Amino acid sequence: METHKGDNPNKYGSSAPNLVNRQTNAKDTVINVNGIEIGGEEIVIIAGPCAVENMEQILETARAVYSGGANILRGGAYKPRTSPYSFQGLGEEGLRYLSQARKETGLPVVTEVMDTREMELVCKYADIIQIGSRSMHNFPLLKEAGKCRKPVLFKRGLMATIDEYLHAAEYILSEGNREIILCERGIRTFETSTRNTLDLSAVPVLKRQTHLPVIVDPSHGTGHSWLVPAMAKAAIAAGADGIMVEVHNKPLEALSDGQQSLYPEEFVQLVKDLDKISQAMGRRLFLHKSLLA
Amino acid sequence: METHKGDNPNKYGSSAPNLVNRQTNAKDTVINVNGIEIGGEEIVIIAGPCAVENMEQILETARAVYSGGANILRGGAYKPRTSPYSFQGLGEEGLRYLSQARKETGLPVVTEVMDTREMELVCKYADIIQIGSRSMHNFPLLKEAGKCRKPVLFKRGLMATIDEYLHAAEYILSEGNREIILCERGIRTFETSTRNTLDLSAVPVLKRQTHLPVIVDPSHGTGHSWLVPAMAKAAIAAGADGIMVEVHNKPLEALSDGQQSLYPEEFVQLVKDLDKISQAMGRRLFLHKSLLA
Amino acid sequence: METHKGDNPNKYGSSAPNLVNRQTNAKDTVINVNGIEIGGEEIVIIAGPCAVENMEQILETARAVYSGGANILRGGAYKPRTSPYSFQGLGEEGLRYLSQARKETGLPVVTEVMDTREMELVCKYADIIQIGSRSMHNFPLLKEAGKCRKPVLFKRGLMATIDEYLHAAEYILSEGNREIILCERGIRTFETSTRNTLDLSAVPVLKRQTHLPVIVDPSHGTGHSWLVPAMAKAAIAAGADGIMVEVHNKPLEALSDGQQSLYPEEFVQLVKDLDKISQAMGRRLFLHKSLLA
Amino acid sequence: METHKGDNPNKYGSSAPNLVNRQTNAKDTVINVNGIEIGGEEIVIIAGPCAVENMEQILETARAVYSGGANILRGGAYKPRTSPYSFQGLGEEGLRYLSQARKETGLPVVTEVMDTREMELVCKYADIIQIGSRSMHNFPLLKEAGKCRKPVLFKRGLMATIDEYLHAAEYILSEGNREIILCERGIRTFETSTRNTLDLSAVPVLKRQTHLPVIVDPSHGTGHSWLVPAMAKAAIAAGADGIMVEVHNKPLEALSDGQQSLYPEEFVQLVKDLDKISQAMGRRLFLHKSLLA
Repeated sequence: METHKGDNPNKYGSSAPNLVNRQTNAKDTVINVNGIEIGGEEIVIIAGPCAVENMEQILETARAVYSGGANILRGGAYKPRTSPYSFQGLGEEGLRYLSQARKETGLPVVTEVMDTREMELVCKYADIIQIGSRSMHNFPLLKEAGKCRKPVLFKRGLMATIDEYLHAAEYILSEGNREIILCERGIRTFETSTRNTLDLSAVPVLKRQTHLPVIVDPSHGTGHSWLVPAMAKAAIAAGADGIMVEVHNKPLEALSDGQQSLYPEEFVQLVKDLDKISQAMGRRLFLHKSLLA
Repeated sequence: METHKGDNPNKYGSSAPNLVNRQTNAKDTVINVNGIEIGGEEIVIIAGPCAVENMEQILETARAVYSGGANILRGGAYKPRTSPYSFQGLGEEGLRYLSQARKETGLPVVTEVMDTREMELVCKYADIIQIGSRSMHNFPLLKEAGKCRKPVLFKRGLMATIDEYLHAAEYILSEGNREIILCERGIRTFETSTRNTLDLSAVPVLKRQTHLPVIVDPSHGTGHSWLVPAMAKAAIAAGADGIMVEVHNKPLEALSDGQQSLYPEEFVQLVKDLDKISQAMGRRLFLHKSLLA
Repeated sequence: METHKGDNPNKYGSSAPNLVNRQTNAKDTVINVNGIEIGGEEIVIIAGPCAVENMEQILETARAVYSGGANILRGGAYKPRTSPYSFQGLGEEGLRYLSQARKETGLPVVTEVMDTREMELVCKYADIIQIGSRSMHNFPLLKEAGKCRKPVLFKRGLMATIDEYLHAAEYILSEGNREIILCERGIRTFETSTRNTLDLSAVPVLKRQTHLPVIVDPSHGTGHSWLVPAMAKAAIAAGADGIMVEVHNKPLEALSDGQQSLYPEEFVQLVKDLDKISQAMGRRLFLHKSLLA
Repeated sequence: METHKGDNPNKYGSSAPNLVNRQTNAKDTVINVNGIEIGGEEIVIIAGPCAVENMEQILETARAVYSGGANILRGGAYKPRTSPYSFQGLGEEGLRYLSQARKETGLPVVTEVMDTREMELVCKYADIIQIGSRSMHNFPLLKEAGKCRKPVLFKRGLMATIDEYLHAAEYILSEGNREIILCERGIRTFETSTRNTLDLSAVPVLKRQTHLPVIVDPSHGTGHSWLVPAMAKAAIAAGADGIMVEVHNKPLEALSDGQQSLYPEEFVQLVKDLDKISQAMGRRLFLHKSLLA
């Protein structure tokens, strides 16, 4: 409906805005995080708990996902929760625990920021800033992320069209930050057997319209741990550059999202399966030197 | 899925949380804004442009809606826009223009806040703080609204279930602010002939589950000015305590949402029609003394 | 996507096809059923049980809705049910019971047909043929309805856009039957507090695009009897030409949809309320002479 | 909401009804069509045009998909179209052309039936009866399909939950026909960049709840031929037993769905890619002896 001054319709009839559009930058954007390349030939795996709960939990899970083949550690210190009475995250204490986990495992860390006032703090601790699904339309937050000097893992809103998603990403790019990792994580539909409907078609659509890397989160996308392996494999087969999955050292005791978290041993098996699919796609997993040896 | 410690399922099988729940407060919450009661017997009309564009536009529109029967003036100084290249609002300058319009017409002013850092500023100027649809899940912002001493017009997210909406309202109440006006403004569905699908069933559902006043925004709910009168009347017939409509002195020149803005003369006719429906519902419009005389 | 040879875009940018389009027939279509006019100035009320269950139930309910002010009796003899193990309706036996109810009360009868092979039989018994929501895309059935000489109450599919709905109605018109009553009955969305989301905006959209009468079914549209009165009133305020509601002599014992059926005394109160809203709209209820006396 | 007498909730909390439920038949149902096994270890490919348009078109396309590696030929003789003025299919003439194509290539044929009155005729010509998405809730048609002695390719309704889909399949099984192939073909959501949203999570959900084979139609699921290869690969990686794709000898001249039809040479490449993914999944394509030689 709105007309956008910066819009530049491309040959695919895309209405993707200027900076995000593949026409303005035909070359794939590859983001380097401590030597790990996101958006290149290799498939990247991000794993960890929904929330950082305590030092022991995050260290134990970090070690488990590291040895299972994860490249980046995830974990929330600030948690957007439906109810104000649910666990809201440990805040800066959680960020410190993540730092400790990075120190021990060498894994870079991605964690969510929800408030413009916390951007500076989160940027100090994180290797990658996450903007969550509920914040996709938080334009002041996007502008702050655009000014920060860290890559941004930018999740699609659960009821955002792909067109709106790309316009929101443009908010970040137009402030000067070009290191954006897009992430399909399920959209809201009428279907109730899954928590959300994982929209895997978004992967090839996004890859065609934009030069940015695209990953998939099958944990939030399905809401059930038993569905995660099938959908993670499907994501790679659809052309995703990586996946982000929830793994917890003790899923049954998780303070949030335990139902959709993999056990460490399930994660190990998943990585092996993803290796096969990646090769069938002419790609390969990014693996730590220690695991390759 | 989540269990909420503060939840208190009521006799209607509601999962509405504690403070928002009608069981904890059977009496309707009535909010008094400069003598205008919202949530009482009288129907309240909020009108004005989507965005404050300049002094002349807001003053002219304010005078028009005042003399047409509006009780409260709306107008955005901070605008959430799909594209970063669209008009983003005048910021504090817009707030000053709204103050001037209030001074001239006596109409209280409602305006949106998008960023926790701007809450204090907006609170200083506004009579009612608006939390927009895209911010419904911005929990840090809700907590700040809960600490502010102004009533909050809290719009339903276009992707939010009624249950999630009530839990989000609880974020505001649990910080100490009980003066919340709920607002149905359309949800996203597959239908494309309207901008959103106005979910009028939400009105009786909300009135049953909570003690808070409920109004309806048929302008965003439909996206077309010619649909606004029919849906405004339907909203009152469904039991709403008021409506919020977009009116612009020159809709064809509007910087945003011109397509869904009423001409002043259309607004005048609408108020007359709403008066009849209100009476058929055993209620009446809240009218300024000057108009009653 | 498809181009339609018979399409004739009108001044409203409508893509409504030729015969259904208001441009080809600016005059409202008014359908006369035994002296009851549907689509004229008067508001029509259709009431009765979801399914015909036995002679006593249909007669008792028919008498109740007649004396409460209903103009037409509804009741299903062929029932589309989610499960093959649920009650499927009485078939021709149910049609005979409906005839008996008509004989006793004088109320014309509307009942659903699901199968092309049963069209002739249902046409023989019914005053109005109903095509249900699940059959909206059953094109062979629509063509048969187009050949039958009875008015058709044609419900919108719960998954159909308004554009698809009008193209489906065109299937009936293009076979020669112009007596179609459109019926909004709720669409499927993500919201779960109501069975469907009643899309009342469809009423003014349909009235603008087509010359056909439009009624609303708030029983299926909400799924809860306590929501029916509010949404029935809203439907009339939105401009509907009538409503269709489920009433059962003993809702708690209903074989289907008991949860959304009104008690006879609730129906009596509803008609009184609808009378007030109708008058506020400059219209009036169609009332039997016996009730007017 | 409804309770179903035959329901038998299983250990997965499934509400899948009795006959369709994996608990009543833990063994995978494998359907044999002229020596091609559907639901076994091998992956099956169904290909052909949306509609049978003329003898030359269907023969040419049949030869192309045969030599490209298809196992079964698809093509519609009865076409459900949004507008009554669009091409409605050739009817029995189309069925005869399909027979000719089968004779020349040896490929079994799947074609849609829309009307109970045509079931016998379509059964006579087809090797597999298709029930299309718009007919998923056509219960009389399902019952007739249950009485026919041919396997049924039963597509999910575009707005049906998985639970409703399984209850609808039960209509077919409960009449005695156990040879049902389920087919995910995209659901309707708010996203507009694809024709439908292909719900690939439905594949593992269906495989867990039922013993029936599950295939995927990425042509209708996406609506754009350039998206078909990515989503066909993702479907196999998600665990599907096969795919159904639209191929046309001259897509630009197609009377329907040309936009989503592959060129024959695109189909050849797709089969090669699917072969790799199938092997990565520990499976393999079903290939004609002539192609293996």
